[in-house]
Amino acid sequence: MSKFWSDLVQQLNPYIPGEQPKIDGLIKLNTNENPYPPSAKVYEAISRANNIKLALYPDPDATELKESIANYYKVKIDQIFVGNGSDEVLAHIFLALLKKESPLLLPDISYSFYSVYCSLYQINYKIIPLDNKFRINPIDYKVNNGAIIFPNPNAPTGILLSLNTIEEILTNNLSSVVVVDEAYIDFGGKTSICLINKYPNLLVVQTFSKSRSLAGLRVGFAIGNKQLISALEIVKNSFNSYPMNRLSMPAAIAAIKDEKYFQQTNTAIIKTRAELTKFLTNNDFSVISSMANFVFAKHKSIKAKTIANKLREQKIIVRYFDKPRINKYLRISIGTEKQNSLLCNSLKKILAE
Amino acid sequence: MSKFWSDLVQQLNPYIPGEQPKIDGLIKLNTNENPYPPSAKVYEAISRANNIKLALYPDPDATELKESIANYYKVKIDQIFVGNGSDEVLAHIFLALLKKESPLLLPDISYSFYSVYCSLYQINYKIIPLDNKFRINPIDYKVNNGAIIFPNPNAPTGILLSLNTIEEILTNNLSSVVVVDEAYIDFGGKTSICLINKYPNLLVVQTFSKSRSLAGLRVGFAIGNKQLISALEIVKNSFNSYPMNRLSMPAAIAAIKDEKYFQQTNTAIIKTRAELTKFLTNNDFSVISSMANFVFAKHKSIKAKTIANKLREQKIIVRYFDKPRINKYLRISIGTEKQNSLLCNSLKKILAE
Repeated sequence: MSKFWSDLVQQLNPYIPGEQPKIDGLIKLNTNENPYPPSAKVYEAISRANNIKLALYPDPDATELKESIANYYKVKIDQIFVGNGSDEVLAHIFLALLKKESPLLLPDISYSFYSVYCSLYQINYKIIPLDNKFRINPIDYKVNNGAIIFPNPNAPTGILLSLNTIEEILTNNLSSVVVVDEAYIDFGGKTSICLINKYPNLLVVQTFSKSRSLAGLRVGFAIGNKQLISALEIVKNSFNSYPMNRLSMPAAIAAIKDEKYFQQTNTAIIKTRAELTKFLTNNDFSVISSMANFVFAKHKSIKAKTIANKLREQKIIVRYFDKPRINKYLRISIGTEKQNSLLCNSLKKILAE
Repeated sequence: MSKFWSDLVQQLNPYIPGEQPKIDGLIKLNTNENPYPPSAKVYEAISRANNIKLALYPDPDATELKESIANYYKVKIDQIFVGNGSDEVLAHIFLALLKKESPLLLPDISYSFYSVYCSLYQINYKIIPLDNKFRINPIDYKVNNGAIIFPNPNAPTGILLSLNTIEEILTNNLSSVVVVDEAYIDFGGKTSICLINKYPNLLVVQTFSKSRSLAGLRVGFAIGNKQLISALEIVKNSFNSYPMNRLSMPAAIAAIKDEKYFQQTNTAIIKTRAELTKFLTNNDFSVISSMANFVFAKHKSIKAKTIANKLREQKIIVRYFDKPRINKYLRISIGTEKQNSLLCNSLKKILAE
């Protein structure tokens, strides 16, 4: 605390991301990164950096990147906003579209950055509890609100909503922006992007950090009605003209063009998720059915924190949240097949103790 | 405008950056980029990307990059904040440190993004006119204020303040944060970083975009008392945990380590600036003595806008600001020696018409 700080800073409680360990050799199953490297075409694009004029500012409008995304999702370029990771995209969304007189609605168990953005931008929000099976119930969102945000699949539960359910929420709230945060949609869900022309209040957020294996390069985007997108452009251009750099953009373009590799790695992750779910279920865990690249599971008797600490001793990191309702659960990111075997072996040892 | 926008968005007038032309072959003297490419060591660092785990999130604390900067400027790591270009660093500074009850003071002729940040964060500010020779006069900043910001050298004038003058402003305002935006300091100025331990109210902002030839990779930083830095970290961690990516960071580290190349390119730019200043002075321009990588000049009779348009026809872009007090001036970034000859030849033709 210091007299030089603004009043706002004195009130903020920042988001705390999962650990990025500085030592090598750990099996990192704590921040839902992709266990597979990005497409070889990404590295090829970067290796052409010698021809990239790094001394010049990047395209402030990120046109080529937007074109690639537009082409992939069959939308128009003015329906796309890109940012320095989906966290930056979300930050701009909160300020541009979710700060309203009536409260923003968000689930109690969800991406915990949401309430941090609300503090940052002094947004009035109301927490809607998930039901007793950790599900989002559309009827709970049929109350006075200025806007709505939730992840689909939800995090850290991994539970997917169907497009019908999303449409129900959209239809019940035609005067509110509804943000569907699809960071994990590619691991078995169906994206709501197909609904943007039908619902001008729908904004879909996605990222290259998970299914495209590019967390290290920070590329996220939002897709929706061009009116929503232009609000985001106004905020972005009042914050940083050039958030996207001259290496991340060609890398992301290369990633989105390599559909074959994308399908291959996603398929592998989905297969490993099924194997891990089976293993956990057979070993006295209850596992929530996940459509993300992680599972959320609790053991019938051993404390989650104990398991997390013992795994850490065996050089495997998973995420544990010391929060009401979910402090009995571990969130375990899906690794490679090999990492998954090592995880299962370690768990077997811990459970046998 | 849309009912979905927040009230704030409806009021914003974003910053408009200089054109980034999408056609090749133009001589780009409009956005103060470095005409020389970054150090070969930067490209070497990027070529090692095959060993960089792009699927993993970057270090949220950017520790290695901060260590390189700390080492270069002989400061402590907790006296450094880094961001996705100095525009992002500035944005966080405005929210964390410049939003106070009393107004923020800033010069009328200055980096025009400052007032945009004030709108974005609803900061009360007061504009202090430069004197009739476009100089910042310390006595004008000896008035009630919550904080102060100015560039040194100033932009778009290029006029440098001495460290004595900076100290006068700091001493007169010990209860206010004073931000010295040193984007152009390396082209002949002396940085205020040596004053941070003496003045806990001083925050210095720099960038890799100008003297380090890395505008394309978006790396900026601030140096000051650790209390100021921790306010920035709180805002950053409430906005985006990972603003710095896994390629920009090693590239910036390679750039700051190549002191020889840095000195070589800066010396070349300073030499070319002297040549251009001489040419302009000999050809009926009045030129403000610049310590930046641009000059600010007006012709005795031909309109600045006319000259800018005619240069554009000859594939040379310079910057013209249609703003009070400065609409007779051109801001011309310093190019390579060859670009400078082509510029001078084009100007000769235009003036002879």
